Amino acid sequence: MKLDRLVGDRFRERPADCIVDSHAFMVRGGYVKYVANGIFSSYTPLKRVTKKIEQILREEMDRVDGQEVQFPVVMPASIWQESGRYESIGKEMARFNDRNSSPLVLGMTHEEAAVHLVREYGQSYLKYPFMVYQIQTKFRDEARPRAGLIRVREFTMKDAYSFHTSQEDLEEYYKRCHEAYERIYARVGLPQVISVASDSGMMGGSVSHEFMLLTGIGEDSIVICNDCDYKANMEAAECIIKPMRDEVSKEFEKVHTPGAHTIEEVCEFLKCEPKDSCKAVVYQRNADDHYVVLFIRGDLEVNETKLTNFLGYDVHPAIITDECGLVAGFIGPVGLKGECTVLYDRSLMGRNNLVCGANEAEHHATGLDMQRDVKGAEYHDFAKIQEGGICPVCGKESITISRGIEVGNIFQLGTKYTKSMDMTYLDKDGKTQHPIMGCYGIGVGRLAAAICEEHHDDYGPIWPLSVAPWQVHLCAVRADDEEVRAYADKMYEDLTNAGIEVIYDDRKVSAGVMFSDADLLGVPYRVIVSPRNMKQGVVELTARDKSFSESKSTETATEEIINLVRENLKF
Amino acid sequence: MKLDRLVGDRFRERPADCIVDSHAFMVRGGYVKYVANGIFSSYTPLKRVTKKIEQILREEMDRVDGQEVQFPVVMPASIWQESGRYESIGKEMARFNDRNSSPLVLGMTHEEAAVHLVREYGQSYLKYPFMVYQIQTKFRDEARPRAGLIRVREFTMKDAYSFHTSQEDLEEYYKRCHEAYERIYARVGLPQVISVASDSGMMGGSVSHEFMLLTGIGEDSIVICNDCDYKANMEAAECIIKPMRDEVSKEFEKVHTPGAHTIEEVCEFLKCEPKDSCKAVVYQRNADDHYVVLFIRGDLEVNETKLTNFLGYDVHPAIITDECGLVAGFIGPVGLKGECTVLYDRSLMGRNNLVCGANEAEHHATGLDMQRDVKGAEYHDFAKIQEGGICPVCGKESITISRGIEVGNIFQLGTKYTKSMDMTYLDKDGKTQHPIMGCYGIGVGRLAAAICEEHHDDYGPIWPLSVAPWQVHLCAVRADDEEVRAYADKMYEDLTNAGIEVIYDDRKVSAGVMFSDADLLGVPYRVIVSPRNMKQGVVELTARDKSFSESKSTETATEEIINLVRENLKF
Repeated sequence: MKLDRLVGDRFRERPADCIVDSHAFMVRGGYVKYVANGIFSSYTPLKRVTKKIEQILREEMDRVDGQEVQFPVVMPASIWQESGRYESIGKEMARFNDRNSSPLVLGMTHEEAAVHLVREYGQSYLKYPFMVYQIQTKFRDEARPRAGLIRVREFTMKDAYSFHTSQEDLEEYYKRCHEAYERIYARVGLPQVISVASDSGMMGGSVSHEFMLLTGIGEDSIVICNDCDYKANMEAAECIIKPMRDEVSKEFEKVHTPGAHTIEEVCEFLKCEPKDSCKAVVYQRNADDHYVVLFIRGDLEVNETKLTNFLGYDVHPAIITDECGLVAGFIGPVGLKGECTVLYDRSLMGRNNLVCGANEAEHHATGLDMQRDVKGAEYHDFAKIQEGGICPVCGKESITISRGIEVGNIFQLGTKYTKSMDMTYLDKDGKTQHPIMGCYGIGVGRLAAAICEEHHDDYGPIWPLSVAPWQVHLCAVRADDEEVRAYADKMYEDLTNAGIEVIYDDRKVSAGVMFSDADLLGVPYRVIVSPRNMKQGVVELTARDKSFSESKSTETATEEIINLVRENLKF
Repeated sequence: MKLDRLVGDRFRERPADCIVDSHAFMVRGGYVKYVANGIFSSYTPLKRVTKKIEQILREEMDRVDGQEVQFPVVMPASIWQESGRYESIGKEMARFNDRNSSPLVLGMTHEEAAVHLVREYGQSYLKYPFMVYQIQTKFRDEARPRAGLIRVREFTMKDAYSFHTSQEDLEEYYKRCHEAYERIYARVGLPQVISVASDSGMMGGSVSHEFMLLTGIGEDSIVICNDCDYKANMEAAECIIKPMRDEVSKEFEKVHTPGAHTIEEVCEFLKCEPKDSCKAVVYQRNADDHYVVLFIRGDLEVNETKLTNFLGYDVHPAIITDECGLVAGFIGPVGLKGECTVLYDRSLMGRNNLVCGANEAEHHATGLDMQRDVKGAEYHDFAKIQEGGICPVCGKESITISRGIEVGNIFQLGTKYTKSMDMTYLDKDGKTQHPIMGCYGIGVGRLAAAICEEHHDDYGPIWPLSVAPWQVHLCAVRADDEEVRAYADKMYEDLTNAGIEVIYDDRKVSAGVMFSDADLLGVPYRVIVSPRNMKQGVVELTARDKSFSESKSTETATEEIINLVRENLKF
């Protein structure tokens, strides 16, 4: 198409509210228009990118025997009540009543709809395994939409659901999907995406992986071992603690620590290290504000995902009232008063000579020996792994922590949904069983943003050919020149007829404006037709990624470009 | 793909709740699954049909210089408040508040979003005209979803919005879109779709057309002249009345009509025809129940669209209370009491010797002369046109009324949205102007259902090749026969490699089950490979529409089928 007809404005200034580059370029290049917090309209260039991503997703899902279907965006609350998630999911699910006061929800994921679609079909073991997928709009009322298309409220997602009669079959299929995901990322230009073990969160199930693009602007922390191939999401990474214990235990002694509330203040006052202290972190159960006191080594942080997974309910940081019996800033494991659940992190197991709170205002204690003073304590893993920490697989102190964007995830769901929604089949022996599920998601807009994040320079995106809005950007510099006009028009026609996607700029603007617009549209190949070039019988062919810039004879240029695009489109 | 892997059940019995054939076949053939009233999931066969329809829509929209974009499904109330429709649209728009109590709506149409997307872009006359379109999920909380996919609450729609600097330019473009729509219907197998002038309803604007498939199950009434090419939606059709007046006016006289309330009862009692009576039809304004009394000839019905368009507000049939002053069943234009708006239909203009109510219980009057007795009455067109009525274009009494399904609509919107949302551009002379809009919609699912309605037999749909879920249905009858298996497998592979879409049935089921499943899937070409055929060195090639059934040599069958599909796919 002709650039002067392309709806959307391009401009030079980086908008002040754009923190990440992909967001800035999508706004500056006329890709998106802000409609509301976390809600955007897409102009044609982005729509063309996302359609290409969607086609790649479709091809790879079909390749692993997926069947494209479509679930509704608006669903009756009833199917979410069946699974129990109508209650367990909070404000992120949009809910409303229809004209007859029936409660409806907007789909933020479609496990319930998938089970609903296939539960009559899948009544015999002979029908298994099968997988259905869709590419559809979803809405999730995120508390903090951010970074343009990275975290939005309304988004298009490819979500797939597989059904199996055995864990082995699920695992085999899960592996195929993992490979399909690797192919997808390679095809869209992100072969460097890694998969990391992750926590399954509200999805249920045990084994799951997130696909991560490592980048400083990512909002996820990824734990990577430099010595073996261990990779995990921070939420899922086990924190290994080297056992430590002094040979001699000192006596448990109360000390006056006026004004020292935080671990840092207490340690400075008592001249010890935070790693030799026992810190109390207090939460409250969301449902009824019941207190949960977690003791952990003073230098470690609590991994709240591990905590809520262990508890089986959601909690929030506590507000400690005068009536509750807890003495804020001075809580310790010995002589703890107040009604609360008490938990101990593994980092305290076997430790002695620790500093802790004395459960009395302005007082701490020294010489805490967990074995001697806290009888019967059970220890679990609640701590966040730290840079330089111990790898849970190879055991070396080789953990690094990187930032990343999650660009996909896959889950082994087990029977969480088929049990709660009572989907059954008869097995070979005529016995009733619940099928085992897997699910597999990729957000289309976020993937487009991640590609842009990874592939850009100071002037705009550098779209990989496979997802570029157009394949060739044809610039007719001085289209009022008769020879330029005739040649460029002919090339536009010939390329288009050969099935090449061309954006054609024949505007009466300076070469500078033309090129900066072309940079913002990020089309991989650029052809420049100008009076000067014409005189030499050539056109200029350059790559957006600056990997080459060549003069091509006007005689053969069109054919060479067609071949170049066709050759590089092959996968 | 192989039929035995296709998710979804097919069955013989017509479900009791399916009134129309397309609904019954879509349920029986494993195309849709009911989720909630007016909300369905689609299985793969329907998804494949709708994707093909969408691709045809895309190609035809691109051909009239449309640019594909995407608006959000969830929109902030604010842009609907700008246009005024947040208030004027009723319960059919779904509304909810997000976690921060900001009001959001689900898009049922996207004029507001379109203006929002382009109002910065379109600030100079040089940018015009342009058109943007999307294919996207919409939700409209219909009071009465019905007939399967014909009238649903959630649906996928192609909606397009054009912007112009003059009415002439809009009209020219509107014509191009009309032609694009004709091509679309022809391409999906419905060349018989007609366009009719229609009422613009809540969309605003004056000129609009609906595209109608005439069918007995349609919910719209279409007025068609058998003598000229006049066609209109019932709502928009002008009702022409032949002037009538007796030479001599009788006296206005009150008569006792005990127990006669309806027009029929009164006319029988007074021995006259309904067409010689003046009927009162009473409404109330939705906002405040203010009464509106409309007098119309006794044999005519009120066209409520004309009424509300005239009034400028919505009304509902009245509940006449004792206090309001109106005497239900005996209302007449002479001596009418009570506070109300009084209107007169054109059918009463100049009439005399009419029967009417006397505004007194159990009494009517005869000898009503509108000229003599109802001074200063203004007459407007509020009547529904009737079968055999007068054509407003050619003037002949040649009107027939048909049922139809609306499968698309186009509107000249004018400046309703650009004015209310303050979208302006500078014209050639530097003057600020509001652009003029057109909009163009087609519902994808309804179009699929309409195609099925029009193209089916007693056994299932007969999909046109252009939108069929697959192009060839390959039946291997007795696939356990070695020769059958080898030949059919090879044909499946060869056809698939040639880019032909094949559904391959190699199940161990009877030929009867195979063929009835094939009928339900409605694939245009069917190939039967069986032991008996193999012995004769042939396969059987039949058309789903029964237009041919031929034996083809096993040597050449594959190639012939490839050619047949390619030849017939050309448009």
